[in-house]
Amino acid sequence: MHSVIISETDHSDLLDKPIGIVRQAIRNNHYQGHTAGLCKSVLQCNIVILPQTEASDFQTFCQQNKQACPLVGVSEPGNPGLTALGDDIDIRSDLPLYTIFRHGEPVAQFADIRDMWRDDFVTFALGCSFTFETALMLAGVPLRHIERNTTVPMYRTNIQTRPVGRFGGSFVVSMRPVRIEDLASVFRICEQYPHAHGMPLHTGDPGKIGIPDISLPDWGDATRIFEGEVPVFWACGVTSQVAIEKARPDLCITHAPGAMLITDIDDLMNKHEERAVPPVFEKHVHGGEM
Amino acid sequence: MHSVIISETDHSDLLDKPIGIVRQAIRNNHYQGHTAGLCKSVLQCNIVILPQTEASDFQTFCQQNKQACPLVGVSEPGNPGLTALGDDIDIRSDLPLYTIFRHGEPVAQFADIRDMWRDDFVTFALGCSFTFETALMLAGVPLRHIERNTTVPMYRTNIQTRPVGRFGGSFVVSMRPVRIEDLASVFRICEQYPHAHGMPLHTGDPGKIGIPDISLPDWGDATRIFEGEVPVFWACGVTSQVAIEKARPDLCITHAPGAMLITDIDDLMNKHEERAVPPVFEKHVHGGEM
Repeated sequence: MHSVIISETDHSDLLDKPIGIVRQAIRNNHYQGHTAGLCKSVLQCNIVILPQTEASDFQTFCQQNKQACPLVGVSEPGNPGLTALGDDIDIRSDLPLYTIFRHGEPVAQFADIRDMWRDDFVTFALGCSFTFETALMLAGVPLRHIERNTTVPMYRTNIQTRPVGRFGGSFVVSMRPVRIEDLASVFRICEQYPHAHGMPLHTGDPGKIGIPDISLPDWGDATRIFEGEVPVFWACGVTSQVAIEKARPDLCITHAPGAMLITDIDDLMNKHEERAVPPVFEKHVHGGEM
Repeated sequence: MHSVIISETDHSDLLDKPIGIVRQAIRNNHYQGHTAGLCKSVLQCNIVILPQTEASDFQTFCQQNKQACPLVGVSEPGNPGLTALGDDIDIRSDLPLYTIFRHGEPVAQFADIRDMWRDDFVTFALGCSFTFETALMLAGVPLRHIERNTTVPMYRTNIQTRPVGRFGGSFVVSMRPVRIEDLASVFRICEQYPHAHGMPLHTGDPGKIGIPDISLPDWGDATRIFEGEVPVFWACGVTSQVAIEKARPDLCITHAPGAMLITDIDDLMNKHEERAVPPVFEKHVHGGEM
């Protein structure tokens, strides 16, 4: 079975709806599409559910490879709640679509996992790039894959993760072309989102991080880089999927690509007090009379 | 009087000497040159000394414009010590060379200010770009002005400071050409030095921040930008000098350009625990088998 990228799904009914309405639609299996653009400025998360026997190693793997796998929440074994991220979240039903992996291979997708739930399941919530992408667009930084409604290109690199137990493999990065004039803004904004991959890992020559051909992404759609732009590479949450493929746990359940958990907290988490940008930066980002 | 840039002064006798030896040489007026390269990995500071009547506004000005004027120490009025930065610092003698400003104009340079000291003087210590330059070079990022033994080019911009009382004016920036492949490292390293101007303010087109001609710096020496490099701009401590010129205080004493205060603390200040770089970054910066 191939997992389906569901970025084309129509979710116009849910745009600009409050969290409660969107969550109910998802919980009742009325919506099984991607969550990009839903509940703006709310933290969305990648989800990985593993049996307790695998959970400890996976948790340490995430902690050792924070830039790719920024943990923002972990459940008690068997508890389908994630109270740190929302009082009434039920992880058995609150993702639009789930992918089931057996021995590291995707084998099925389901709209809920109520029937499969086990007392030894541990849920991990990881930060997601939607968070910083929203912030970049609000600051006037164009993102080509969003403007063109394509999926961000992602690449395997030759940068190795710090392996833990059977979890390991190389980093996956996402690439966005950035105008040279926007680079300072991009770094300064992303620095505020350590729980969403933070600052880019690399700029420029893709060969330096083991990408032989920028026009052939391993996931997502190729994106052109124009004159005056440089390719900018961020650690990507798909790194955790590669680690799971490598570890081959008997069973693992994740969100289907793009179909994230919508939480009750805002996209800066505990960083509200740092949201204020310095005056120079503000001016720089918004351009205007500079 | 023109203030003299003293970056050509020979200080080979003091290179690799411990702080105590260097400080004694300076205190006894045996060395009146620039401090670049002395006491590596030790925090060096810009110094501004003002009468108490001007001190409060200047302090608020620095706090409101932290990127250009990062305060790392402030003395009690009349106290020539700066205990936060070193137990035995005596600011009346511990700079190699002092510039005296009257009504905002430089009028004299002295090797010490023991005879001029007043009970109402307040000393401000501001972070300095030597700090991050050392870190960049240790990470393998070449800095052309250092390789060529020239002074970093500095420019007035059209980005306004937040004025406080009579202190105001526009930001001054320093410019260093950076290879596109080094940009991520540069931002990630500088982010660790908020007390030394932190991350760059701008990248690329100088016109966007009001610099009409990159080949004509307002201070320092022009630096060429080669193919594959972009101009990167940092907030610069000279912003405080422009603010003083504008405020025209009756009297102000500063370090002579390049002749900084050498402190007893290391260049990361209270940030020791954050020095560790994530594995990806480490690999990225040092290149090697990637």
